[in-house]
Amino acid sequence: MKDVCVIGIAGGTASGKTTIVNKLKDFFKDDVELISHDCYYKEHNNMPYEERAKLNYDHPSSFDTDRMIDDIIKLKEGQAVYRPVYDFSIHNRVPETVRVEPKKVILVEGILIFENKKLRDLMDIKIFVDTDADERLMRRIIRDMKYRGRTIESILTQYQTTVKPMHEEFVEPSKKYADIIIPRGGENKAAMDILKGHLNIMLNKN
Amino acid sequence: MKDVCVIGIAGGTASGKTTIVNKLKDFFKDDVELISHDCYYKEHNNMPYEERAKLNYDHPSSFDTDRMIDDIIKLKEGQAVYRPVYDFSIHNRVPETVRVEPKKVILVEGILIFENKKLRDLMDIKIFVDTDADERLMRRIIRDMKYRGRTIESILTQYQTTVKPMHEEFVEPSKKYADIIIPRGGENKAAMDILKGHLNIMLNKN
Repeated sequence: MKDVCVIGIAGGTASGKTTIVNKLKDFFKDDVELISHDCYYKEHNNMPYEERAKLNYDHPSSFDTDRMIDDIIKLKEGQAVYRPVYDFSIHNRVPETVRVEPKKVILVEGILIFENKKLRDLMDIKIFVDTDADERLMRRIIRDMKYRGRTIESILTQYQTTVKPMHEEFVEPSKKYADIIIPRGGENKAAMDILKGHLNIMLNKN
Repeated sequence: MKDVCVIGIAGGTASGKTTIVNKLKDFFKDDVELISHDCYYKEHNNMPYEERAKLNYDHPSSFDTDRMIDDIIKLKEGQAVYRPVYDFSIHNRVPETVRVEPKKVILVEGILIFENKKLRDLMDIKIFVDTDADERLMRRIIRDMKYRGRTIESILTQYQTTVKPMHEEFVEPSKKYADIIIPRGGENKAAMDILKGHLNIMLNKN
């Protein structure tokens, strides 16, 4: 299987990566598979919940990126993989895995996926979603309260102590590796049209 | 003539706009016409050279943008226009004009073309070329010494007194109107491929 197109979608927390991923999924349907870096958070089975909650989840070292790289290489070679599953509400990996089938388009998504050179080099197109920091913070507050059961105090403490400093140290500088930057996120229709058109061309070439 | 596609290419001084324009010209050949905002610098016939040299050429008010807007509207309607000609070595407009024919693709290029809403709204795609400030300064020094007969002192004085402050006040904030942002300028092959593919689709639709 040589016609695998790996598309990297990076950007700060709540920048609109998921919206873009969902639009590409709607467009490519069964040809597409998603791999999120978040699923590859390291497991911390020997650590109590209170300690796990205080970990820095925005540092590159908190991810098992090597496993993700291995999985993407296998998918590119046409092999299915079993990816880990992470539960945000308990801040830990769960024992189950999910079988991922090799597809024509593999979307790789995460805040730090351009930070690792080996991972970056597996990508055919690197897209950075660039949304204002205050917009991202607003979206993150809503998402974490609604879907991850966090309090506003814990969200803002985490944002100030790890999310923002790690964004400035690792996420923002990795933008320079992007092939194209999409401002304003997934609601940017012109950019989405450009992207879909290009992927269509790439897929038909193979 | 309804199939006119207006592509705006903005970005700081020496960001690589011209490289992108030239690549699109090579690609679209006779279907493409270029309109540079620089050609529409206001005339200053009643001002001596020394005074003209000190003007702020990076402020939106230094351009006759209304005339440019009128010209683009006419080109979109299928009419030829006579655009002004500006001579950088004398800091003034010259009496000659250049006849511009209506074409399928009109490239509109300049540092401040996204700053004016009326001009911006004429564009089908808005591309911002985003290149590091120090890279841009290096390229500008080389260009202005080589092709515009300036001394390094005058280049750096102008950069510090008008180019940089106007970039921060007007150019950088106008980036938010872009549909896509191309990092590193015209040598970004992946972005150029994406762009050409999309324009091809747009042109074939009409």
